[in-house]
Amino acid sequence: MSQVMGLGEFDIIARYFATPRPQGDVLLGIGDDAAVLKVRADRKLVVAMDTIVDGVHFPIGTAATDIGYRALAVNLSDLAAMGAEPSWMTLSLALREANEAWIAGFAAGLFEIADRFNVTLAGGDTVKGPLVITVQVAGWIESDRWLARSGARPGDRIFVSGVPGEAAAGLVAIQKQLPGSAAADYLRQRFLRPEPRVALGRDLRTLASAAMDISDGLLTDLGKLCAASGYGARIDIDELPHSEAMSQLFDAASCVEYALGGGDDYELLFTVPESQAAQLSRQLTGQVACRQIGVITDAAGVECWKDRRPYAVQRTGYDHFANEPPYDPVEP
Amino acid sequence: MSQVMGLGEFDIIARYFATPRPQGDVLLGIGDDAAVLKVRADRKLVVAMDTIVDGVHFPIGTAATDIGYRALAVNLSDLAAMGAEPSWMTLSLALREANEAWIAGFAAGLFEIADRFNVTLAGGDTVKGPLVITVQVAGWIESDRWLARSGARPGDRIFVSGVPGEAAAGLVAIQKQLPGSAAADYLRQRFLRPEPRVALGRDLRTLASAAMDISDGLLTDLGKLCAASGYGARIDIDELPHSEAMSQLFDAASCVEYALGGGDDYELLFTVPESQAAQLSRQLTGQVACRQIGVITDAAGVECWKDRRPYAVQRTGYDHFANEPPYDPVEP
Repeated sequence: MSQVMGLGEFDIIARYFATPRPQGDVLLGIGDDAAVLKVRADRKLVVAMDTIVDGVHFPIGTAATDIGYRALAVNLSDLAAMGAEPSWMTLSLALREANEAWIAGFAAGLFEIADRFNVTLAGGDTVKGPLVITVQVAGWIESDRWLARSGARPGDRIFVSGVPGEAAAGLVAIQKQLPGSAAADYLRQRFLRPEPRVALGRDLRTLASAAMDISDGLLTDLGKLCAASGYGARIDIDELPHSEAMSQLFDAASCVEYALGGGDDYELLFTVPESQAAQLSRQLTGQVACRQIGVITDAAGVECWKDRRPYAVQRTGYDHFANEPPYDPVEP
Repeated sequence: MSQVMGLGEFDIIARYFATPRPQGDVLLGIGDDAAVLKVRADRKLVVAMDTIVDGVHFPIGTAATDIGYRALAVNLSDLAAMGAEPSWMTLSLALREANEAWIAGFAAGLFEIADRFNVTLAGGDTVKGPLVITVQVAGWIESDRWLARSGARPGDRIFVSGVPGEAAAGLVAIQKQLPGSAAADYLRQRFLRPEPRVALGRDLRTLASAAMDISDGLLTDLGKLCAASGYGARIDIDELPHSEAMSQLFDAASCVEYALGGGDDYELLFTVPESQAAQLSRQLTGQVACRQIGVITDAAGVECWKDRRPYAVQRTGYDHFANEPPYDPVEP
């Protein structure tokens, strides 16, 4: 069909994914039945696996470089939420055809973020199939220093990094093809290029009582953190970080809805004992601002307040099987 | 649509895949952003990742239990080829719908083989999408004792475990719906339930100079082993293990073709220095017979001999992108 017809599985791997020699913890990499990896005797291994599907986790037509970036970014976000230091990954790539330009773009996006976080590709699989990408990333954590979801206690302050909702707003900007502007372009990038908060997660190891990343929406994910900890939460809508870009393009109600219910932010949501909450900002070395938005309670469930009153939320996040795929159509 | 409508991602994980408490090397399992795993200070970690796609790696309509079994079996075969001891896995399951009977069947097949090989499910992802399953399995190997493809030297004898070709013949029996008979049923099982040769791989750590598993066909995979080692091979068709079941259902030429070109056997192909080849069978503790089928040469490529003459082979294996999917249609 095209000039790349006949490019086989082994050519794809050799040309785009093989590294010239073992790196980092990888002793034997791509090219054998399995990879062989060094372990660090004084550490624990932390592994996360996320799958992204064409038209489910990104809109059909998303650029290959952005898909490659996302495939690893969402996994690094999980390591960040544990406080782990990234090390290596495995990749499964199911492709409809061996389109060389697409594969080159995908590899460029994947290795762009991999190199930035010192992640080595150890191995994986390339098969014919619908476009489905799975990455498993592994990292290291000092023994007994990982951040679980289950450690929040009543009175702990709830924090969030960055500006939740911008990714959801960016997705709307992509799907509605909002005209180019600084705000729209910024938001689109926030959806397409989520920034894993790895440095923040490393800082939080000794500061936070619980942590997770926001992939399904702030309220949904806070509900999971509360369920894992056995408590509830109250958050104050007025304390949510303000997005200048969102405010320029969307009304106030939509901004709140995106912040609370929009997925794909990959910011960290975490709790800190009350005694340490005031000093938190001084102890964080990372670049991203963190904002206190609420408190863990001994009630059940998550309640929202606004203007000192309970506030009813319309939309509370995304479950792949319970709801329709969000991308087509989306109502802002 | 059905009684399981509304069964969400988190219900699926909790009901079918969560284990009650951490096991084996898993310190923190399903339910957080990532899993946390113990490492063994005196060992190396060995990881393999294989993806199976509906209609590509198994015929559409294959029973869910057989798909679950296969998803792990093909990965364990890679660990076997390295001589590693299996420990834990991660699972990505992309499903069109939350069909509870299907998921229960899949989990039953997966855990049947996982329990037999002491593999704990550490984590993973469940998403909506076309039916694509990725497993990454991890195991342990004593330092510097892994079996690579690259260690074969001229004069080394080539061995294969089991009876290559039976899986390909079994696939034909499935697709042509051959009438039930002991032979046809046996071959179908050989395709549906490949047996990872883990115990054999453990034995071979100190005996073999090179090893790999046969997933794409004996000749294709032997070609890869030779390329990795930098030498060639000569194999004797008359020495291929005889399959009584294949002989009952297929003519002699088809039997040879399946043995040399059929994929999905998941037998081990390995080389042993000449000086040790004669004693090999006494040193193997496993249940599976291994047969000497050829020798590593210092020529390039793989040549076949039969009746003491060079033998031209019709079909040499399967590459996911270079060829059409083999399952529909198949010409025996």
